[in-house]
Amino acid sequence: MEKVGSTCWAIAEGYIPGSGHGPEPQMTSHETACILNATEVDAEVRIMLYFSDRDPVGPYRIDVPAQRTRHVRFNDLDNPEPVPRDTDYASVIQSNVPIVVQHTRLDSRQSELALLSTVAFPVK
Amino acid sequence: MEKVGSTCWAIAEGYIPGSGHGPEPQMTSHETACILNATEVDAEVRIMLYFSDRDPVGPYRIDVPAQRTRHVRFNDLDNPEPVPRDTDYASVIQSNVPIVVQHTRLDSRQSELALLSTVAFPVK
Amino acid sequence: MEKVGSTCWAIAEGYIPGSGHGPEPQMTSHETACILNATEVDAEVRIMLYFSDRDPVGPYRIDVPAQRTRHVRFNDLDNPEPVPRDTDYASVIQSNVPIVVQHTRLDSRQSELALLSTVAFPVK
Amino acid sequence: MEKVGSTCWAIAEGYIPGSGHGPEPQMTSHETACILNATEVDAEVRIMLYFSDRDPVGPYRIDVPAQRTRHVRFNDLDNPEPVPRDTDYASVIQSNVPIVVQHTRLDSRQSELALLSTVAFPVK
Repeated sequence: MEKVGSTCWAIAEGYIPGSGHGPEPQMTSHETACILNATEVDAEVRIMLYFSDRDPVGPYRIDVPAQRTRHVRFNDLDNPEPVPRDTDYASVIQSNVPIVVQHTRLDSRQSELALLSTVAFPVK
Repeated sequence: MEKVGSTCWAIAEGYIPGSGHGPEPQMTSHETACILNATEVDAEVRIMLYFSDRDPVGPYRIDVPAQRTRHVRFNDLDNPEPVPRDTDYASVIQSNVPIVVQHTRLDSRQSELALLSTVAFPVK
Repeated sequence: MEKVGSTCWAIAEGYIPGSGHGPEPQMTSHETACILNATEVDAEVRIMLYFSDRDPVGPYRIDVPAQRTRHVRFNDLDNPEPVPRDTDYASVIQSNVPIVVQHTRLDSRQSELALLSTVAFPVK
Repeated sequence: MEKVGSTCWAIAEGYIPGSGHGPEPQMTSHETACILNATEVDAEVRIMLYFSDRDPVGPYRIDVPAQRTRHVRFNDLDNPEPVPRDTDYASVIQSNVPIVVQHTRLDSRQSELALLSTVAFPVK
């Protein structure tokens, strides 16, 4: 298959609500970067996080095997440090092979959930 | 009309909730790929599904006649096999003629529905 | 200002729910094409609607003056004919000058509203 | 890092609901332009607002330091004038260095919130 995607993506909108309702873990408020690697080569993905008031943090390293998808919850990232809750952030996602990135948030701060999703911005 | 769209699209975010509330079928939790074929030629569309822990499945074959739109529910795909519920997946959608693809999810796991939608990523 | 936008856009996802809750008209279920004309020239916009089972309908004609935005509710289009409710459709939006198009749906079929929005696909 | 983003973005969809539910300020109905400046140079950002029935207003000036993100609430813009509520608008966002812009609305007019988000349209 032809090369599907881009090797650098940006998500300007990031925010993990600090609270939630509903059964865990599906209904926990969370932010996800859905990554598709449709190539024949394993992807080594590095995520940098940007904040409003301090230097960037990262890279967080994620492997996405060839011909696989991985839905990465920012809530679960903890190396080099956990992603703070109730804090604005942004992210830049780089890969050694073309990938496709989509960004989703499930917000369960109130009793009913809200969803948002958008394709990340392909930088190159 | 000029060529409207692209012949290859990717949706990195896929997830069909396994439960829902409200009258069937409008309020069943579902994921849809809305496909527009504005050309004068019938489109032969093939969908490949990617998972986190096994090989891709497909192609699923869909026809979209010339000058028509078709809103394909992933819930309804069953050949070569149904799309599993409560499972992360991604999709790549290819066509012999340019099409436009938009991705929508209606989530009715809780009593009130949540919607998300985004234009798929045009690969070429 | 430089040219802001594209002269042809596509929205593959279209569906106006046939019912709604809440005060009219803000909370009526509706679909909107938000059009920005940042140029110095009035825009003559033509919208074609595509369906799953019959020929396209249109063009619907909309004027967007220079340096203005117009949020067009598909619910309000009635010439050459009203947009059917509870029916899948798609749209192609053409203009004589570059414009930017964003697509939003407010769904108030249940007591709480759901929103979706995405930038339309710029065809050229 | 390579240049991440574009120097001109458009958001055709703008609307700040005039009322809301829930604790302030997180649950106030609001519209946000999430801006990421991943470059090594401070960004001088100018936002022009477009309306349906009067001349554009602006520029609103925002600084986004190098390697930082800033989530700008349109609710908070007040120079040269506040952004009117319950009014359709659109925006064009320009910067001296490449940035990435994502647009989010939290709508809390009803007791449960609704979210929408999309990457803005990169003009160049």
